Amino acid sequence: MGAAQVRISDGFWDSYIELVRETVIPYQWEALNDRIADAEPSYAIRNFRIAAGLEEGEYGGMVFQDSDVAKWLEAVGYSLANHPDADLEQTADEVIDLIALAQQEDGYLNTYFTVKAPGERWTNLYEAHELYCAGHMIEAAVAYYAATGKRKLLDVMCRFADYIERVFGREPGKLRGYDGHQEIELALVKLHKATGEERYLELAKYFVDERGAEPNFFAEECRQSVGLSIWTKQKLPVPSAGQLAYLQAHRPVREQDTAVGHSVRAVYMYAAMADLAGLTGDASLLAACRRLWANTTKKQMYITGGIGSTHHGEAFTFDYDLPNDTIYAETCASIGLIFFAQRMLQLEAKSDYADVLERALYNNVIGSMSQDGKHYFYVNPLEVWPKASQINPGRHHVKAVRQKWFGCSCCPPNVARLLSSLNDYIYTASAADNMIHTHLFIGSEASFALAAGKVAFIQQSNLPWEGRVSIEITEAPNEAFTLALRIPSWSRGKAALTINGSRTEYKVENGYAVICRVWTAGDVVVWEPELTAQLTAAHPEIRANAGKAAIERGPLVYCLEEVDNGNRIPSLSILTGTELQSTYDTGLLGGAVTITVEGRADNRNSWQSDTPYRPIENNEQPTSVTLRAVPYYLWGNRQPGEMTVWIRTAAVGV
Amino acid sequence: MGAAQVRISDGFWDSYIELVRETVIPYQWEALNDRIADAEPSYAIRNFRIAAGLEEGEYGGMVFQDSDVAKWLEAVGYSLANHPDADLEQTADEVIDLIALAQQEDGYLNTYFTVKAPGERWTNLYEAHELYCAGHMIEAAVAYYAATGKRKLLDVMCRFADYIERVFGREPGKLRGYDGHQEIELALVKLHKATGEERYLELAKYFVDERGAEPNFFAEECRQSVGLSIWTKQKLPVPSAGQLAYLQAHRPVREQDTAVGHSVRAVYMYAAMADLAGLTGDASLLAACRRLWANTTKKQMYITGGIGSTHHGEAFTFDYDLPNDTIYAETCASIGLIFFAQRMLQLEAKSDYADVLERALYNNVIGSMSQDGKHYFYVNPLEVWPKASQINPGRHHVKAVRQKWFGCSCCPPNVARLLSSLNDYIYTASAADNMIHTHLFIGSEASFALAAGKVAFIQQSNLPWEGRVSIEITEAPNEAFTLALRIPSWSRGKAALTINGSRTEYKVENGYAVICRVWTAGDVVVWEPELTAQLTAAHPEIRANAGKAAIERGPLVYCLEEVDNGNRIPSLSILTGTELQSTYDTGLLGGAVTITVEGRADNRNSWQSDTPYRPIENNEQPTSVTLRAVPYYLWGNRQPGEMTVWIRTAAVGV
Repeated sequence: MGAAQVRISDGFWDSYIELVRETVIPYQWEALNDRIADAEPSYAIRNFRIAAGLEEGEYGGMVFQDSDVAKWLEAVGYSLANHPDADLEQTADEVIDLIALAQQEDGYLNTYFTVKAPGERWTNLYEAHELYCAGHMIEAAVAYYAATGKRKLLDVMCRFADYIERVFGREPGKLRGYDGHQEIELALVKLHKATGEERYLELAKYFVDERGAEPNFFAEECRQSVGLSIWTKQKLPVPSAGQLAYLQAHRPVREQDTAVGHSVRAVYMYAAMADLAGLTGDASLLAACRRLWANTTKKQMYITGGIGSTHHGEAFTFDYDLPNDTIYAETCASIGLIFFAQRMLQLEAKSDYADVLERALYNNVIGSMSQDGKHYFYVNPLEVWPKASQINPGRHHVKAVRQKWFGCSCCPPNVARLLSSLNDYIYTASAADNMIHTHLFIGSEASFALAAGKVAFIQQSNLPWEGRVSIEITEAPNEAFTLALRIPSWSRGKAALTINGSRTEYKVENGYAVICRVWTAGDVVVWEPELTAQLTAAHPEIRANAGKAAIERGPLVYCLEEVDNGNRIPSLSILTGTELQSTYDTGLLGGAVTITVEGRADNRNSWQSDTPYRPIENNEQPTSVTLRAVPYYLWGNRQPGEMTVWIRTAAVGV
Repeated sequence: MGAAQVRISDGFWDSYIELVRETVIPYQWEALNDRIADAEPSYAIRNFRIAAGLEEGEYGGMVFQDSDVAKWLEAVGYSLANHPDADLEQTADEVIDLIALAQQEDGYLNTYFTVKAPGERWTNLYEAHELYCAGHMIEAAVAYYAATGKRKLLDVMCRFADYIERVFGREPGKLRGYDGHQEIELALVKLHKATGEERYLELAKYFVDERGAEPNFFAEECRQSVGLSIWTKQKLPVPSAGQLAYLQAHRPVREQDTAVGHSVRAVYMYAAMADLAGLTGDASLLAACRRLWANTTKKQMYITGGIGSTHHGEAFTFDYDLPNDTIYAETCASIGLIFFAQRMLQLEAKSDYADVLERALYNNVIGSMSQDGKHYFYVNPLEVWPKASQINPGRHHVKAVRQKWFGCSCCPPNVARLLSSLNDYIYTASAADNMIHTHLFIGSEASFALAAGKVAFIQQSNLPWEGRVSIEITEAPNEAFTLALRIPSWSRGKAALTINGSRTEYKVENGYAVICRVWTAGDVVVWEPELTAQLTAAHPEIRANAGKAAIERGPLVYCLEEVDNGNRIPSLSILTGTELQSTYDTGLLGGAVTITVEGRADNRNSWQSDTPYRPIENNEQPTSVTLRAVPYYLWGNRQPGEMTVWIRTAAVGV
């Protein structure tokens, strides 16, 4: 890979990145310090202070509470890289000092086991998230080091990683285990890249290779356990095959072909597998990644890029089981899917990975955050009836209104770290091949060190509202290099290329327009993928969407909200074959394209409240209505109400 | 009410009643004695043997396990009344001897508290079902006494009821409480009617009147409780308002207007309220019954007569929340709804009550039992995807295949006692008004003692397959009396009356054709409500059924099964406006009318498995198919597969 420098400057994304910098990071800092009124306390910083000996008290929060500090610090790192801020950096330095103080003599670092359960280290990997927290802090250390050049946290985490390497492994006397929640694997790859140390790569490989091997480590651990479950406070039973599948330890990773279990664990693991496949050239691992990618994204993914069909275990269920109303589609899972997609793009630049990445980013992920940056959805439904969410217990997990910082607050800091590092997701470059792929159309200044020499350009993008992107070369070597521009799936293959004002034919490779030539500074490429509103159907095996259509426009999925269309959203149907009208509405939550289309509303005038069922011929003709759809990512930002992405279809003339 | 003697002889129902007598009652007897291979043991008879001192051992089964013996005995009573059987009667007598032996000196009778928790009587009415079990045994005693004239169990239960009366009440020194699961109330009304004792009526009235009064008894009980919860083994928390609503103790019954909480508890209570309203002339209680009836049946009832929209607490949720796939619709709840309807008919003969009664009986209730009488649905879904039931935890409660006797086996004996007493649900008679109402069209010989004198007639019925009923008078007084024949809702008010061969006009009162005249033996009334297959729409507020139709034919709801229509049932739609073709299929599970109708199947030919979503215009035209619908009560008797009651609609020409 070529070293890339990318700085975002984009009409759509700048405000998000700013929101993260100016609101989310400061707000989350307040949350980590238990200073948000009416929100559940985090205890996260306090736990570190207690572990560091600066404060007396009891451990608070979840067993994995440390990871919230780590994710915040990681987001801060990315933010500082793109936007220096001396005050924020000083706060972060203080947190890092605190973390260093909380580290134990031997390198161990985890406030739960330091404060609450000393002596129980590594005794409950099945539940206790020790390596998970370590992984997040390693990611923070790498990000902070990259941004500031400061090694303190990196050194702390190298010491911890070195200690972990002494504890875990196949050698006699070592614990032949791995974590209950995958995360350390991808973090160790980053640590390897940041430090150049091969042993961190080897350790990541060990964790991935051991997972699911027989005899099963977790079965043994639970069998030999003398302690009680962290969650049930009862003796830990030996996990069943289904319970092992929950954490993807039911069989070796290379033998897995279906996404199962807790969806965040799954995609974090797949991302690490892809990392390792790329770094080691392991063909069987690459094959497993491709299989798991295909199953996850072609059979178990919502149109919004959400994954996880049930709140029971926040998990995958099975192929094509994608209920819209009892959905889970956790924010973190879509972020993990983006990590996986990014790694696959680094392995092989195929537009399918970027299509999914873009889908998850523009819909599930940014939809999870309120426009004020202070409220979040954990669960991202495609259909909401607020009253059912309140009263029907099977829907309690589906909230109609974004919540403040959660007790288990994994999602908000995950959003922050993704958005503040978004510049890392736009391009991949192959220095040896002298090739730069543009995956996302996000305005940015970018520079790359290719074998041919340095390349710099400025991307300008009108996405998601218009399908027009320009790339102006600002620096180019004398030799030829290749620009590859993604042909997004939503353009249906229609994308016009103009170079220096001349419409140009192009070659297509793996879903990208590839243009190889000698470029010179001042060259301007205009890339116009066709971006029109369209109706989308779901695969017939997805029973939940039978007879329905979704509205999409470019990367955005749309939805109908009660505030625009009245209540009883399910009584509405959309006329297929009529025109979808797109209008930029400056007044809508900072401006957005809304879509209007002719529809029908079931006629309720003649229904009496004491008649639940009646002959269908008593039904009057449906009323003609104009449906107004708004981008899914904006839903629930005005007033609570019903919402749906999938809309019943009716044909013209009915 | 006039004393009625009714004996069923009916082409449709005889086989059910025979099945109960010849298979269900003997099979359940085996189950109660833990002799069913591969089924969870019941322990129920064994508990009585231990309590009676005949056997050593530990209590087994649920806290309310006694009620299974009671319900079985009640069914036996009804069965013996209609079909004497010396062997069965002897078995029952032996069980009654055993029960009498298990009764304590002071009259108390409950094996859980005798064997497992002596000394804890009446300390946990919130959870322990003591009065519930008492109620079921009282119902058994009344039924057995009515059938055989044998007083032994009746005397046992009078002694218990007398003891209960000494324990409970408003007087100083008495426990001012009531049961956590309503049932004793309606049982005490039956005991009052069987014995003529006013004090049992008073005790029933006390329990109904006290319920939900302030200060709340359960809140106090839990506050003062020293024991642990039977279910959680933890200290019982003081119940919240929502928890009190679960057992309908959130407010006084006369102030309740919405069906809430555990649906079986609710309808058992409503039935007792209706009983008391009738016997005491309490107008406020009658008004509450009407309100609760209207809410339950007009806003919270499935088209199959199922109630209870969620498995969480087996409970109602809220108006129009009737999901078909995550449904509960417990068999016992529909049976309780039938009890409620029967009481309302006794109060006021309005056809709406009988319409609902018939709907629940012909669909939810008999659909719960397999054709072999040995397998049951507890949950009666309107939409099933077997794979989701297996793999998606939110659907685990919805079974695609009927199960053997359950650990909590309330439903099978409830079906048995209802079907073996079905003769009690067909008519009501008012002796003073010389009026006989025919609510159900079930072939039967019936006789009534009216003020005018004795009336006897024979009803013959071709239901549910044909809308033709004849009533031949076999005995009549010299004075006039009134026959009232229900005009079923499914006839849409079209029903022809023929008396002795002459088509006759009739007066309509409360949904009944009323014919008052002097009848003579040999008079023949032919009643022909129009019975045709039709499509039914659901109220637009029932979001789950938007854009869908159900097929009904007479009292029967129909469904599409995979075995007839292929898998991916949701991909099918029905053409409204085309003819529904009814055919009697002798080969289908003992013979039934099936319905065929033109439909459309979404075309899947061009879909690739790696394309979850695509532009709707890529969809090919749907395929024309012939849908085959079978009566809902027969579903799941051939091979497991997908099923739906509500079918997407398409208009002709689309």
